[in-house]
Amino acid sequence: MALLYKADPVRGEQWKRLFAEHAPDIEWRAWPDIGDPKDIRYLAAWQAPDDLEALLPNLEVLFALSAGVDQLDLDRLPMPLPVVRLLDPGITRGMCEYASFAVLSLHRDMLRYRQQQLARCWQAHLLQPAAQRRVGVMGLGMQAQQILATLKTFGFALSGWARSEHTIVGVDCFAGDEQLPAFLGQCDIVICVLPLTEQTQGILNRQMFQHLPQGAALVNMGRGGHLVEADLLEALASGQLSAAVLDVLQQEPAAPDHPFWQHPQILLTPHIAAMTQPESAFGVLLDNIRRHQRGESMLGQIDRQRRY
Amino acid sequence: MALLYKADPVRGEQWKRLFAEHAPDIEWRAWPDIGDPKDIRYLAAWQAPDDLEALLPNLEVLFALSAGVDQLDLDRLPMPLPVVRLLDPGITRGMCEYASFAVLSLHRDMLRYRQQQLARCWQAHLLQPAAQRRVGVMGLGMQAQQILATLKTFGFALSGWARSEHTIVGVDCFAGDEQLPAFLGQCDIVICVLPLTEQTQGILNRQMFQHLPQGAALVNMGRGGHLVEADLLEALASGQLSAAVLDVLQQEPAAPDHPFWQHPQILLTPHIAAMTQPESAFGVLLDNIRRHQRGESMLGQIDRQRRY
Repeated sequence: MALLYKADPVRGEQWKRLFAEHAPDIEWRAWPDIGDPKDIRYLAAWQAPDDLEALLPNLEVLFALSAGVDQLDLDRLPMPLPVVRLLDPGITRGMCEYASFAVLSLHRDMLRYRQQQLARCWQAHLLQPAAQRRVGVMGLGMQAQQILATLKTFGFALSGWARSEHTIVGVDCFAGDEQLPAFLGQCDIVICVLPLTEQTQGILNRQMFQHLPQGAALVNMGRGGHLVEADLLEALASGQLSAAVLDVLQQEPAAPDHPFWQHPQILLTPHIAAMTQPESAFGVLLDNIRRHQRGESMLGQIDRQRRY
Repeated sequence: MALLYKADPVRGEQWKRLFAEHAPDIEWRAWPDIGDPKDIRYLAAWQAPDDLEALLPNLEVLFALSAGVDQLDLDRLPMPLPVVRLLDPGITRGMCEYASFAVLSLHRDMLRYRQQQLARCWQAHLLQPAAQRRVGVMGLGMQAQQILATLKTFGFALSGWARSEHTIVGVDCFAGDEQLPAFLGQCDIVICVLPLTEQTQGILNRQMFQHLPQGAALVNMGRGGHLVEADLLEALASGQLSAAVLDVLQQEPAAPDHPFWQHPQILLTPHIAAMTQPESAFGVLLDNIRRHQRGESMLGQIDRQRRY
């Protein structure tokens, strides 16, 4: 019985050591050295190989090594292969750190001060109390709820929006397309942590920006596919949006001539909000393998119809 | 009975409105229109006028409109005039926001990503879990303790140092000159929020940096006088320090040719970590005036020997 790993080789070595130490009964194999394909019951991967059914005839579970699974073409995966996303507490902590950094940067005018430093300009701007600044989170899954809990520490006014209804203490919750304009209408800073699906593709677009109060700011730490990049440039130019912090792009890495690089109102980072960390993710993955071996349900299993 | 205000005129108008509405018995006067000096019992000021004793013969209390009082020349103030610093919860919240922004910026390599964005370089760097990052706070007063409580949310390992002994749950506390090297020896990120006194002038210097682990980072949100600026440049050049976030300088505003402006390892902001906000500060100031009128002790009164 073997597990095939197909992702970053450097972290692969860390995973391998953890399996050898804590789960010696599970044989570790790293792509592309798959050995006898018939041995392989589990695949732990960022992206799946083509023609999975023919390649790994005895595969029982695909463990995505990420919190989202949009990088997988679910329609091309064998049915009914269970697909499980990684609910790594290290990813959640990374998301909370990045969201706090991004919100504090926008709340405290840090993009403006970054430009002032480059221009050798010493000028203070009035600051607004956090309680008078409303932060809205799009997406209300586990990560989003942790982000909201972290932002609460600073005393921000908080809202959340998701497809389905939620109740979260201290957060004004909105649901569905119908309530999206009302949600947006009161957000000074809006953070996208939605899963990328057909419904959410391009959701951060011109029409959406027009529902925000003038001068609002955007944080995209979902996927590049959520944002219509040309619409953001237009909204920044018109003043409808004041600034954006982006960790993801339509095409990564960004081309050297991408207009976001040198945009004074955009803080751009190279998809680093959170990274799967073998130290914190190993326990979660192993727990799911053991659950599967015992015939129990696994944590983070994807609904292949909803795609998240 | 009148109060004389001597600070920023824009916020002065906010103060004036608050006094008119909530304390009409206290006559408001704004520098330099002092009227009959004999009426003035209270002075609310950032800096005191010269020759205070002759100018305001009936002055009973000097309320500094700041958390620190190093901008006042205490030796030139009449004895035994009580000097009271401003324990504005708005200042504390601002300090917590700035400290969190600064620590997250350093923890998450944001100075490096800032340079990469300018250079159009898309490259991720491994991230370290917060629990493996030790943040040390120099100064353990009310503000420092709130900063530590806020940083705890992110799971950082925490230490604190002050002149006198402290006990804070979840924080390794060190005291006095003797324990300073041990405190510094385990800090990955060190934050200065000390009061500026003869003892702490220039405390962030070459010798102090040498006690830090190689590659540590510095946040100065105390006063510019705490930092020996040439020593910081040397420590950054040698690699002893990796980065610094500075909100204060020896001379403010910084001269256009100051070497910190364009330093890639320094994030510089124009003394904006916290600002006295009349909305949150008014209640604190009025409470102290009422305490003084009733003959009670005031909150934040300076020990003129210790100077803080």
